[in-house]
Amino acid sequence: MIKIAVDAMGSDHAPHSEVEGAMAAVEEFPVAVVLVGPEQIIHAELKRRHCPRHLPIEVQNASQVVTMEDMAAASFRKKRDSSIHVSARLVREGKAAGVVSAGNTGAVMTTSKIVMGVLPSVDRPGLAAVFPTSKGKPAILLDVGANVDCKPFHLEQFAIMGDVYSRVIFNVARPRVGLLSIGEEASKGNDLTKEVYGLLKKSSLNFIGNVEGRDLYNGSCDVIVCDGFTGNVALKVSEGLVEAISTLLREELSATLTSKMGYVLSQKAFANFKRRLDYSEYGGAPLLGLKEVCIICHGRSNGHAIKNAIRVAYEFCNNKLSERIEAEVARITATGEVRDPRLSVSSELPSPRRIH
Amino acid sequence: MIKIAVDAMGSDHAPHSEVEGAMAAVEEFPVAVVLVGPEQIIHAELKRRHCPRHLPIEVQNASQVVTMEDMAAASFRKKRDSSIHVSARLVREGKAAGVVSAGNTGAVMTTSKIVMGVLPSVDRPGLAAVFPTSKGKPAILLDVGANVDCKPFHLEQFAIMGDVYSRVIFNVARPRVGLLSIGEEASKGNDLTKEVYGLLKKSSLNFIGNVEGRDLYNGSCDVIVCDGFTGNVALKVSEGLVEAISTLLREELSATLTSKMGYVLSQKAFANFKRRLDYSEYGGAPLLGLKEVCIICHGRSNGHAIKNAIRVAYEFCNNKLSERIEAEVARITATGEVRDPRLSVSSELPSPRRIH
Repeated sequence: MIKIAVDAMGSDHAPHSEVEGAMAAVEEFPVAVVLVGPEQIIHAELKRRHCPRHLPIEVQNASQVVTMEDMAAASFRKKRDSSIHVSARLVREGKAAGVVSAGNTGAVMTTSKIVMGVLPSVDRPGLAAVFPTSKGKPAILLDVGANVDCKPFHLEQFAIMGDVYSRVIFNVARPRVGLLSIGEEASKGNDLTKEVYGLLKKSSLNFIGNVEGRDLYNGSCDVIVCDGFTGNVALKVSEGLVEAISTLLREELSATLTSKMGYVLSQKAFANFKRRLDYSEYGGAPLLGLKEVCIICHGRSNGHAIKNAIRVAYEFCNNKLSERIEAEVARITATGEVRDPRLSVSSELPSPRRIH
Repeated sequence: MIKIAVDAMGSDHAPHSEVEGAMAAVEEFPVAVVLVGPEQIIHAELKRRHCPRHLPIEVQNASQVVTMEDMAAASFRKKRDSSIHVSARLVREGKAAGVVSAGNTGAVMTTSKIVMGVLPSVDRPGLAAVFPTSKGKPAILLDVGANVDCKPFHLEQFAIMGDVYSRVIFNVARPRVGLLSIGEEASKGNDLTKEVYGLLKKSSLNFIGNVEGRDLYNGSCDVIVCDGFTGNVALKVSEGLVEAISTLLREELSATLTSKMGYVLSQKAFANFKRRLDYSEYGGAPLLGLKEVCIICHGRSNGHAIKNAIRVAYEFCNNKLSERIEAEVARITATGEVRDPRLSVSSELPSPRRIH
């Protein structure tokens, strides 16, 4: 059975969300979980939840915890027995197939890159977020924060990795790949996107050209690539707008008795609506391009989000996504589609930067 | 009376939106309007709407129209008698105090910059968009697309111009200025934002540090600065998400009889809610840093949006916003806060780039 290491001390509600998510995941999916963190704390939480002994859940002790205030590189050097470090080590040693963490994103990325390693053909792993669209099928946006300043060939690699992700996990036969820019014509965009446009145009991907911010949500694209700065802004703007809309709707709908009645009558519709917008349904953001599987969750993740992240980790492992990404990036490199000489040199040294 | 030139051929619904907006504006505000475009078309539309003769509305003939397909620089050279060109010329010649256009954004920006001129102390005009927040007071984001690749001192100038806009038009005593980045710490962000952080920190502005995408909507900031690529993505992502949410809500609320009844009962609340999110309430995006006033509207603007843009143009003229911006940018330059030698050189040559 595929076993996933879950960093039990990552989320804002650790270890509650992690233990709850793990218990739900092993009940629903053919997966085993090893919860990593201070064993006394985890055992106490399992006991409090009356976790049945027969469930495939183990506990692996890790004495240290990385906080949101820790710098990524420093936490890697100084906290070798942290829950994220031990989780990644379990994977490297073959004792688990993948990692799920809702901890400090920068620390999780740095630790995963160093401990689990980057694929030989990949230069920079990219963090991929899944967006709901009004057409039903989700859209994948990457990079959403792993690489702040990017070279053109990094975005091409993101496109290849996103294409594999979309095909294997969302069963899209020939994913439409768009380049996030500020106008549809090839001449639109900044210095970076204009170069990337040429690279993607020449590639064997189903490149549909430049797309705009609104294409994230209208279902016109399956994979959208951008640098990590732009992607992170797009993600956070969306989160902020959803929060603002929730607040405004609540205010409006409690204003009058009529609208209050309307609200009560339509509240099931609202619940459905919120679920369709809920990123936690898609279960975290995979860091694509590692030798092994690493799924990073929002710090505010609840048990439901952790459960779905474990499902995604399971699907990645079960479908050998890392191997497929390596094969695809290597193939495109071999056929000369990507010509940057740096491409074949995979740096395993982390950037000292800390990115949430 | 302050007279505003309205490019009557700009919007997707031209000249309907423009004529409707002009008629409403002169009724509501102490302003006169000159509608610019093919005079037969405009007169026919005024007649169709039974426009009373006593209203302070004139018509100025312009034989050409810039389309959304025209390139900015080419349209400037080849269509000297276009409605936007003639509108800008009326302002330069002192026959109108400002311009409102819902036309091709790139063409409007290029034409305005060349015909009306850039302020002596300003290097690059910035396009400012106004965002509704859950706290009530709007937030100003700039640049949202006038300058795709920016230098650090451009963002500092955007901050100074946004500060004046917020103080004069929204009556914020000491606007909180944030730098759009991907984390709060000074060390977070890309190469550009890290340099801008230092510049803003040293300035006399009320700089509150780095802010994230979600701060656009939570009211924690009055002015948010970024490069035009990032700002345009933030704007378009927001538009796309609002559309997707509208679609999803409509689907959910027509799913069952109960929710349908709920929808009917709460529809006034929905109307209020949509109005609070409606960008057209704020009346277009001013291009800050020009010698005269230029307000750029969304191509999909209706009469209501055009009316509000005319109001904003009036307020800008009435409050002498351009003079205030020049004084403030010059003052900060004089005190040595901005040290870039290029700052005092105002280029009146347009970029050949076309930006929507």
